[in-house]
Amino acid sequence: MSTSLSRQGSLTLTQQLAERLAERIRMRLLPAGTRLPSVRECARQQNVSAYTVVAAYDLLQAQGLVEARPQRGFFVRDFVQNLPLLQDGQAQIAMKSAATQMPAGLTPGARINASMLIRGMFVESVAGKPQPGAGVLPAEWLDVGFLAAAVRKVSSGQGLRESMVRYGEPMGDSSLREALARRMQRLGIAASPAQIITTMGATQALDIVSRALLQPGDPVMVEEPGWAVEYARLAAMGMRVLPVPRGPEGPDLAVMQRYCETMAPKLYVSVSVLHNPTGYSLSAASAHEVLQMAQRHGFYVVEDDTYCHIAPDHAPRVTALDRLQRSIYISGFAKVLVPNWRIGYLAAPPELVERLLDTKLLSTLSTPTLMEQAMALCMEQGQLRRHAERLRQHLAQARSRSVALAQQAGCRFVAEPAGMFGWVDTGVDTETLAQRLLDEGYLIAPGAMFHASRGANTCMRINFATTQDAAFWRVFETAVKQMQDAA
Amino acid sequence: MSTSLSRQGSLTLTQQLAERLAERIRMRLLPAGTRLPSVRECARQQNVSAYTVVAAYDLLQAQGLVEARPQRGFFVRDFVQNLPLLQDGQAQIAMKSAATQMPAGLTPGARINASMLIRGMFVESVAGKPQPGAGVLPAEWLDVGFLAAAVRKVSSGQGLRESMVRYGEPMGDSSLREALARRMQRLGIAASPAQIITTMGATQALDIVSRALLQPGDPVMVEEPGWAVEYARLAAMGMRVLPVPRGPEGPDLAVMQRYCETMAPKLYVSVSVLHNPTGYSLSAASAHEVLQMAQRHGFYVVEDDTYCHIAPDHAPRVTALDRLQRSIYISGFAKVLVPNWRIGYLAAPPELVERLLDTKLLSTLSTPTLMEQAMALCMEQGQLRRHAERLRQHLAQARSRSVALAQQAGCRFVAEPAGMFGWVDTGVDTETLAQRLLDEGYLIAPGAMFHASRGANTCMRINFATTQDAAFWRVFETAVKQMQDAA
Repeated sequence: MSTSLSRQGSLTLTQQLAERLAERIRMRLLPAGTRLPSVRECARQQNVSAYTVVAAYDLLQAQGLVEARPQRGFFVRDFVQNLPLLQDGQAQIAMKSAATQMPAGLTPGARINASMLIRGMFVESVAGKPQPGAGVLPAEWLDVGFLAAAVRKVSSGQGLRESMVRYGEPMGDSSLREALARRMQRLGIAASPAQIITTMGATQALDIVSRALLQPGDPVMVEEPGWAVEYARLAAMGMRVLPVPRGPEGPDLAVMQRYCETMAPKLYVSVSVLHNPTGYSLSAASAHEVLQMAQRHGFYVVEDDTYCHIAPDHAPRVTALDRLQRSIYISGFAKVLVPNWRIGYLAAPPELVERLLDTKLLSTLSTPTLMEQAMALCMEQGQLRRHAERLRQHLAQARSRSVALAQQAGCRFVAEPAGMFGWVDTGVDTETLAQRLLDEGYLIAPGAMFHASRGANTCMRINFATTQDAAFWRVFETAVKQMQDAA
Repeated sequence: MSTSLSRQGSLTLTQQLAERLAERIRMRLLPAGTRLPSVRECARQQNVSAYTVVAAYDLLQAQGLVEARPQRGFFVRDFVQNLPLLQDGQAQIAMKSAATQMPAGLTPGARINASMLIRGMFVESVAGKPQPGAGVLPAEWLDVGFLAAAVRKVSSGQGLRESMVRYGEPMGDSSLREALARRMQRLGIAASPAQIITTMGATQALDIVSRALLQPGDPVMVEEPGWAVEYARLAAMGMRVLPVPRGPEGPDLAVMQRYCETMAPKLYVSVSVLHNPTGYSLSAASAHEVLQMAQRHGFYVVEDDTYCHIAPDHAPRVTALDRLQRSIYISGFAKVLVPNWRIGYLAAPPELVERLLDTKLLSTLSTPTLMEQAMALCMEQGQLRRHAERLRQHLAQARSRSVALAQQAGCRFVAEPAGMFGWVDTGVDTETLAQRLLDEGYLIAPGAMFHASRGANTCMRINFATTQDAAFWRVFETAVKQMQDAA
């Protein structure tokens, strides 16, 4: 946190310090139970008077974010412990057990939990700098003028006004489902609009699949490394999360085979193309083998194609080989267009559609026709495709620059750089590194966040679009060197 | 189904007949497993040739909606039985058990299930007539020109474009949460924007509360009569549904007390104002007693205020008395403005907020800023309030006309007519009556749909706005008379 507080701006030093800490608490970068630094220590770190620190801590206490414990200092308030309803409940036990299975957090001694991970997705900037660990592309890359125009167009039509006053089509707007079916066809996936259900982002699609097809206690195979929010969701629902190592060609089939023989997993959830965090894409041969195993052992493959718009159309997809027989396709637009738009979709085998639809209806009823029709218009007019092409070119340039900078800074790419994220080995523990970088105003996702099993990890995920700034890499090099010297 | 098929239109008689049946199948009015009438019987009913019926049944079979069973006839396909994944799963057992606890459906011999109930909400018209059982106001009442204008306005601003390219505020757009806090204040409910979370309609708010605060097997008190979709949601999640009789003043406190002593329920879910289906509104004294019981026995009251815009602002609310200490407030805009807009919200005790927010984020991540900002604008500019006032006047006129017609047709109002729905005693079994009315093109919600326990019921729910047509009441009277004569 050594980015200096400003003595000029409209906020007092106390307010600035309180705000900086409050943001971290809200984002769960300082999770419940964390002790704030002592007044003296904080004053030294921030180069302010002890009086300023005391006043800032008082302000945080007044806001209900921290509590003072006599003789011990100030602690981030623990919301969960205040829940009388859940004191002895299984849900809380599940949460705790999820937290225990989760990797260590950004704050030494604290554990990452579902909240902390997912709140991190909303961090837009720390101290106004581009964030090397961001999960989405920079706002300035996402020119959505055409989408806003589409909204204005569809909101002028009488047809839309009529559709708004009813609940809409349960499966989702039919013009969008038709546009999605055509798009999937270009990826080689044969899905009729009657197999497609629109959702509130890919997130709801994943949630619906888990709710409709699993019961608490069911074993589910996930990829490792992989996106811990997905582990957290499954753990919070009481599922048994079975990590499968993910390699360049696909999952470790021997591990999957052992799980199948001993645990009878119900699902395998996979980001097959431009895997997060490695950027690996599945080979056709591996897809074929996964599907054969799915048939033999009776599980479904959930293909999360969140990064489809920045991947080549010809990349092999499990759902293309399988014609959606033992597989479910999930995607959305958060990475290419508008994270906040919350349009996602799933395409499923015909016999699962009704069941998945029921789950959608019970959880949110229908989805907003207005936004779906606007998105359909952008797809029909080719605007989305052209935008995605520009984005891919832009990203390719950013990637080469970022890769060069990372390598100069001593990083080794564990996986061939591709797509949006790089998976780099820093040579030092990335949990400690993340904390040091955060002190300099940079948020990164340490390796432990991508592992179902807790443990120190020297890898980290970087966003190619937000790591083109040499200034970040200088800070990075300094932090790594300090850690090496201290060791 | 005696509304004649037309020999003029662009569709053949076969297509018209197939379409009519297909709509009923999709809406689950003819649930899976139902046998279609024999060819001869259907030909007689529809006044068409046997050839037309055979061709229509073939068309339905080709669409995968029905299957032929040799020697037995045509049956509506059973989607659930085709789910290999769930053959021996608890989810299916839960569904079946939910179905068993559910009242009988519109089709004699079949059971209503969650799907059937919720699909019924999407029925806009049967044979183009106003639907006496509809759950929303007629489309022509809901002039949403101002909302479409608000959308165009906010989608022109640079601020919105910027908010779209990020995930948005986890709790929901702050301008909307501020407008909601002001609105709640007018109802006497003190909630700060920091206690309010926006959701995808009131449906998601109810879903989030159940997911965050309950575990499978938990007992939950609900109102009876009440809205069976809520019973179905809870049953599908594996909860124990405890029906509490609802009277004019409030719930039956003696029944609640017995549940508290023997079952330790975790929640009490109540449509306290303009209760569905009776129109009852809670008295302040009853609210006080419910809250005392909640405090004594440690459960939370979930106040579903879905009908708030057509109720008087001064109606007592549990959450107003309680200052959101042991109670959670839920509402939305589906009944006053735009069912498809999917904007709802909840306001909760501070100590529950973080937990509920986590559940929202894991299930859909954020909610769309564009629509929330448009709604906030309509609220700030007073358009929503003026529209709601007009709607209440309109509804009051419709109600007096509908009540007079219903009474002339021999109905007795079980509850004093108020709000949107009338709860009327027809004197005959409404399950059979519903089937007869459906044959005439009118969809009504029979009494059994509002009871957690299965059983014949002579009450039905009518929508005042859609029962002002004397033609419906003539059909109704004829059907009742035929049933009385047959008895």
